[in-house]
Amino acid sequence: MSFSAEAYFASQPPPPTLQHDVEQVREFVKRQAKEGRNVVLVTSGGTTVPLELNVVRFLDNFSAGTRGATSAEYFLKAGYAVIFMHRQFSLQPFSRHYSHSTNPFLDFLEIEPPSSSSPDADPGISVTPNKRHDLLNVLTEYKRVHALGTLHTLTFVTVDDYLWLLRALSQELAVVGRRAMFYLAAAVSDFFLPRQKMSEHKIQSGKGNLSIEMDQVPKLLKPLAEDWTKGGYVISFKLETDDNLLLPKARQALERYGHQVVIGNDLHRRKFEVVFVSKKHLHGPPPNPRPATDGSDEFLEHWLRINVAHTNQTPGFPLKEIEEDIVAELVRRHTEWIARTP
Amino acid sequence: MSFSAEAYFASQPPPPTLQHDVEQVREFVKRQAKEGRNVVLVTSGGTTVPLELNVVRFLDNFSAGTRGATSAEYFLKAGYAVIFMHRQFSLQPFSRHYSHSTNPFLDFLEIEPPSSSSPDADPGISVTPNKRHDLLNVLTEYKRVHALGTLHTLTFVTVDDYLWLLRALSQELAVVGRRAMFYLAAAVSDFFLPRQKMSEHKIQSGKGNLSIEMDQVPKLLKPLAEDWTKGGYVISFKLETDDNLLLPKARQALERYGHQVVIGNDLHRRKFEVVFVSKKHLHGPPPNPRPATDGSDEFLEHWLRINVAHTNQTPGFPLKEIEEDIVAELVRRHTEWIARTP
Repeated sequence: MSFSAEAYFASQPPPPTLQHDVEQVREFVKRQAKEGRNVVLVTSGGTTVPLELNVVRFLDNFSAGTRGATSAEYFLKAGYAVIFMHRQFSLQPFSRHYSHSTNPFLDFLEIEPPSSSSPDADPGISVTPNKRHDLLNVLTEYKRVHALGTLHTLTFVTVDDYLWLLRALSQELAVVGRRAMFYLAAAVSDFFLPRQKMSEHKIQSGKGNLSIEMDQVPKLLKPLAEDWTKGGYVISFKLETDDNLLLPKARQALERYGHQVVIGNDLHRRKFEVVFVSKKHLHGPPPNPRPATDGSDEFLEHWLRINVAHTNQTPGFPLKEIEEDIVAELVRRHTEWIARTP
Repeated sequence: MSFSAEAYFASQPPPPTLQHDVEQVREFVKRQAKEGRNVVLVTSGGTTVPLELNVVRFLDNFSAGTRGATSAEYFLKAGYAVIFMHRQFSLQPFSRHYSHSTNPFLDFLEIEPPSSSSPDADPGISVTPNKRHDLLNVLTEYKRVHALGTLHTLTFVTVDDYLWLLRALSQELAVVGRRAMFYLAAAVSDFFLPRQKMSEHKIQSGKGNLSIEMDQVPKLLKPLAEDWTKGGYVISFKLETDDNLLLPKARQALERYGHQVVIGNDLHRRKFEVVFVSKKHLHGPPPNPRPATDGSDEFLEHWLRINVAHTNQTPGFPLKEIEEDIVAELVRRHTEWIARTP
């Protein structure tokens, strides 16, 4: 069956940490509002669908959280306050440069023998010279952001955590009105298993095949854009593996949910190519007007591409990240959006 | 349907990197054999079951990889060579102490202002004094192991990767005979989706509920213990959420697969309590003989428990880890096993 948002929230229990998480965000938003900052909610990473109440198995969505973690850094650099709502253990801004697999930080620490003047002292620890420059940049920005207090991080695991948090936080962000942005980069499951259908203990094997039947997750974009936010600028993502579906699905989402931008990306090209799809009446005439590829006059498409060779350099430090351009374009649009008081 | 091991390997394609991975392991094992070390294959982390050929969605098994990564460190300390075959992005020995979520390393690096004698020099980076001691210990052991060349790491993602690698590596380890140990701590899916049933592109939502039907994964423990290894000591794990199933399922596994030890653990108590289940005839009389709880004379049970309060201290550095005792007990048993030439 298909749950409406109301039916979903009426029948599924909230996560136990919801109240605590919301209070922390409320404090954060209040402080940012006082200091006059725009606030972006960045969601990042995949959601799980547990198959058991005592979870051993779950359905997951592929996402390391690169898009969200990288974008969050560029939003911080642009002066935004960032609420970073991410899947537990997915990538985070700053530490993302030092994945334990591709660029482990233990590899560039060195043990310094005690000096001859104090041979009994503990050995010191230093950073390998050719790694110092990059690390210093990351560390400087990390400490700047922490000192300013413009980054607030919270986590989700299941699709239920995600849905409850998204509703609550978008309501909290109503305080900053049009200065709020929603950058919904998390890979959210389209399906879930209602609590009432879950098995209490680990599903036992050896009893034949596994059959799972899941319900559709309610679409929260429409109530978010219509009711929960008060004028916030809402961006969703559409990831496809079949190129032919990308633009039609993006347009369909805008029609259905009435938000501002869909960023479309293909699974295999997402590091160097994305398309912004939006409705013309929300933006006024574009810089270079051109007919939309569906022949209609209703939609705008704006492609961003970077040199694919620049995305694959030193581990953790590519020459160029497409998120830099995505964020710059969104900051431009959001600034216009805020100026255009309705 | 249920696949036999033969039917599985005959019908499912091997991962493209298999040959490369196996050659590297062959070199590693050859060197360890020459240097006279025991070799343990540690598997760690959960396996995925992709639902699509262009993977967006997958079924996963809950596992951060703590058991495997921690145990690998203690095996290295005990002088074993370790093949660490783990789920991509799951915890690894050494770096596990510095999870980006619970103990992020950027938090204990400090920027040192240039000294007054050379004010134009780049700022230096140093380690916060109260974190230096723990980091120095980890780093020293990390560098010792790398200099010795006793750790070889390789990764899997899907259950198919895992099954193909397990068969190939256990065959490679036949070279060291009884000096091989298999410490199968990975959380392997009981179900999989045969290639022939997979959908090519992302499963589209909006077309009703999701129904998945999966086949059972072939049990490789029996051919591993009977055919592939030549006298290696094989340990499997049994994780349950229902206490009443733990011992019966552990005994059943020993009966079915004929390997040496099942380590049973409950999902919520696994950090401070495990039980070793083995068959009496494989071990001779235990130090403190006692009737098995099933009333039969066939099985031995050996419980290991540590103080639960000791498992929750400084992030990344608990006072005591149960893996220390698990590995000590296994090294003792394996040493006896090697001495007892059949």
